[in-house]
Amino acid sequence: MRIDLLTLFPAMLDGLLGESIIGKARERGHIDLRIHNLRDWSTDKHKTADDRPFGGGAGMVLKPEPVFAAIEQLRTPGSRTIYLSPDGTPLSPTVGQRLAGEQHLIFLSGHYEGIDQRIRDHIIDEEISIGDYVLTNGTIAAAVVVDVLARFIPGVLGEENSLTHESFTRNLLDFPQYTRPADFRGWKVPEVLLSGNHALIERWRLEQSLEKTRRLRPDLLP
Amino acid sequence: MRIDLLTLFPAMLDGLLGESIIGKARERGHIDLRIHNLRDWSTDKHKTADDRPFGGGAGMVLKPEPVFAAIEQLRTPGSRTIYLSPDGTPLSPTVGQRLAGEQHLIFLSGHYEGIDQRIRDHIIDEEISIGDYVLTNGTIAAAVVVDVLARFIPGVLGEENSLTHESFTRNLLDFPQYTRPADFRGWKVPEVLLSGNHALIERWRLEQSLEKTRRLRPDLLP
Repeated sequence: MRIDLLTLFPAMLDGLLGESIIGKARERGHIDLRIHNLRDWSTDKHKTADDRPFGGGAGMVLKPEPVFAAIEQLRTPGSRTIYLSPDGTPLSPTVGQRLAGEQHLIFLSGHYEGIDQRIRDHIIDEEISIGDYVLTNGTIAAAVVVDVLARFIPGVLGEENSLTHESFTRNLLDFPQYTRPADFRGWKVPEVLLSGNHALIERWRLEQSLEKTRRLRPDLLP
Repeated sequence: MRIDLLTLFPAMLDGLLGESIIGKARERGHIDLRIHNLRDWSTDKHKTADDRPFGGGAGMVLKPEPVFAAIEQLRTPGSRTIYLSPDGTPLSPTVGQRLAGEQHLIFLSGHYEGIDQRIRDHIIDEEISIGDYVLTNGTIAAAVVVDVLARFIPGVLGEENSLTHESFTRNLLDFPQYTRPADFRGWKVPEVLLSGNHALIERWRLEQSLEKTRRLRPDLLP
């Protein structure tokens, strides 16, 4: 899968998308991820990509020209263009799974004060929100979406990880996890997890997930 | 304000928290942000920080010893310890503003498969979730929370930015923004924004915000 990321702050993403599971997915060729500086498509000598908003107000607004030029150069037949915005569709595992099925995604990360509306009206296919809060810019949001969708690309999660046991796969929060030592400062691991009885362990984990979901997130239950 | 970030992937955060508004806030001394590698508190020669889960299952679980050692060394009177988890309190501007009022925050970013429950039970003060989805690890989530809370620290948003016009400050989505050129490929900026009539512009913007919120996020309206 190919992913192009358009941002004014490409250096923000260097470490973030080069480490851990995403880093490995790039090395192994599961994701062809390219990070681009929007200023590379500016046409004036000052590399301007933003300007003051019409009608007044604080902040700078991303200009249409470099964004149209970038997307028109990068897009391929069937590629999908996504803008990160608090107005967008809320990110969820379902959205992540759907995006992971695409051939080519182009993410546009906005400025703190936003982008020219004509970009959103005429060249963006979809807007996605990572949550009901405001970020200093959309670059972190793009990284979050890439991280969430990457897990659904076949081969990205190696045998050391899995999609089976984790929050939201069954619309339940995750059960408590424990590792060695079995006794830490007098706090002991629940007996059942040391029993070797897999049926009992599965039942205990399901009960714990249900209890936790009921207590913390009853809205997830049917 | 002091912020300590504990993670197994410190390099993920180098670029992310060194650029743009957060980078400037650190330079200017508004945020004393320190990123730590949890492995520095491992006591064995292999720098082990995780282990297989008791009771079986895929993945690795963060061990209690290095986490307790790190937090016990870093914490100060009145510091608050936060774990990033999909089980936690949903992040919101209100949560960001509350956290921005703290003296010292310690963020713990978990592993993909989670952390030993005894950490959560005995040394974590609060759990926060950035959204109902699963990340490959909690490091990006910690960066999102830092980004959201930073905007509420006095002085972090310079005069070039502001809290006044943006999504959620009045429980409304943001109005459309436009910048030059006034005519781009035949798509024109709304006349009112070029009128110079500030009362009209304010009214148009409020109407646009209301209409957009009604259409996309009616749940935000009273």
